[in-house]
Amino acid sequence: MHTYRLALIGFGNVGQGLAQILADRGNLYADRFGAYFKIIAVSDLLYGRICDPDGLDPAVMLHTIQAEGNLENVPGARHGWDALGTIAESEADIVVEVSYTDLKTGEPAMSHIRRALELGKHVVTTNKGPIALHFPQLRALAQERGVEIGVEGTVFSGSPALRLGLDTLTAAGVYKAQGILNGTTNFILTHMENGATYPQALAEAQEKGYAEADPRNDVEGHDAAAIVVILANLLMDLPLTMQDVRCEGITHLTQDDFVEAQAQGERWKLLGAMERTTEESFTASVQPLRLPTPIACNIRKFMSNYQ
Amino acid sequence: MHTYRLALIGFGNVGQGLAQILADRGNLYADRFGAYFKIIAVSDLLYGRICDPDGLDPAVMLHTIQAEGNLENVPGARHGWDALGTIAESEADIVVEVSYTDLKTGEPAMSHIRRALELGKHVVTTNKGPIALHFPQLRALAQERGVEIGVEGTVFSGSPALRLGLDTLTAAGVYKAQGILNGTTNFILTHMENGATYPQALAEAQEKGYAEADPRNDVEGHDAAAIVVILANLLMDLPLTMQDVRCEGITHLTQDDFVEAQAQGERWKLLGAMERTTEESFTASVQPLRLPTPIACNIRKFMSNYQ
Repeated sequence: MHTYRLALIGFGNVGQGLAQILADRGNLYADRFGAYFKIIAVSDLLYGRICDPDGLDPAVMLHTIQAEGNLENVPGARHGWDALGTIAESEADIVVEVSYTDLKTGEPAMSHIRRALELGKHVVTTNKGPIALHFPQLRALAQERGVEIGVEGTVFSGSPALRLGLDTLTAAGVYKAQGILNGTTNFILTHMENGATYPQALAEAQEKGYAEADPRNDVEGHDAAAIVVILANLLMDLPLTMQDVRCEGITHLTQDDFVEAQAQGERWKLLGAMERTTEESFTASVQPLRLPTPIACNIRKFMSNYQ
Repeated sequence: MHTYRLALIGFGNVGQGLAQILADRGNLYADRFGAYFKIIAVSDLLYGRICDPDGLDPAVMLHTIQAEGNLENVPGARHGWDALGTIAESEADIVVEVSYTDLKTGEPAMSHIRRALELGKHVVTTNKGPIALHFPQLRALAQERGVEIGVEGTVFSGSPALRLGLDTLTAAGVYKAQGILNGTTNFILTHMENGATYPQALAEAQEKGYAEADPRNDVEGHDAAAIVVILANLLMDLPLTMQDVRCEGITHLTQDDFVEAQAQGERWKLLGAMERTTEESFTASVQPLRLPTPIACNIRKFMSNYQ
């Protein structure tokens, strides 16, 4: 049995989700994989900073947050450090970087990850910012220090898209990838298809918590572009940056665009795409495109027969 | 660099496809993975039996088949053995079993695989028959002899569904799976949706080479049921057999069924499904079901607004 000591930088939805998984399945992982994951420190701007070298019980942490709104009074826990202090002082083997995302600078997560790698600690992160902006640099640093950097959770909420390409399709190779990469814009487009205006659909997405108060990262395509960069870097080993992605959002689409598309049996989708065109060159884009809907066409044919 | 000696039992589409991949990418695999795959024997009922302990050039074999219709005159090759002889005599490390599929008995592939494992050889197979019928037994035999049995290619033409569950989702676990598991029936259903009768749609599928002359394995759901069994055994560790799958085909569907479904914005799909319901029990089925088509509904709403 090998015990891994985890320090969590950030304890929002993702950090608490990880705590819940370890509470529910930690013993199962120990039995099945011979690996026991022990959280020894948590540092969060909102919920507080605690540590315990003997291990913080994830279920107790979650309960304390639910009851008291923060981690200060978790039984047995000592007061901890800020993020960089936690990375340096907690004696963790693995730093779990799940603080907030900034797609412009990657900070402060970028500094957290760099520091952890420099100190020879493994890093697991769901943070799209530093990985979209600086992955090649971080990967080189990790290799130099002989540690791992796990980034599966930066795209598609952790559905195994990256390992799919890196492990199971490794002998096949990935030359092209495209898809609907952002859920918020897809929600908005579907609502507009059903007759909502853009402001109405956006308001609905914000009300449901899908879109942020400042929705630009989603609706201008930056979030999808960050995913394109991450997929291209990892799956296709392309040295792509955010500046290389031709990026167009959905804010200019009108109801007329939808009426026109539907009249031809088509739907608007925000598509991200990347393709290796030669050994040296590639294309990468995020843009709204009209896709054919064969189902819709068939239905219309069917109805015209029966009317 | 480690060299693996392969014996191919069967050299139809799949065997020739593997030869093409090794011709195209064999050196790349050697560079990237340190593994060189050398075909030292091929045994096929139609194309012939050859061997060469120094390795058969896959490109030359493919060229010879194209030029002469069989493998007999591949330069440098010696006459080989029948299937069981090849397994016993060729000194292969890995037996690639890609002969024809029989979902009733699993033979002759079952005997090939069992013999290879008994002799301590790794097995890779795309053959659905023995794996759907006898996987637990074969897995136990492989473990006993300390060799691997690779079966990814038995479902979904090798798209990595099994490794996805076994490797990348291993910590998550799989509790339920469902989907359209058979392409031939899906082709037929789509044609019927567009107005074809069942016999017309079947004839079209046979003409295109999707359906076999005796189409029962597909249209009665047995092929999909075999996939359900394989997925359940591997992904969910359920001791399921073909007899446990409630199996209903598509042969009884009429145009009236499609008209009725379409009037309600629904489509017929042949769905395979398996679910662990408790630690001890499960459900497994293949059956045609009507699925809602929200797109179609939206289009109809749209049209009624504009008519």
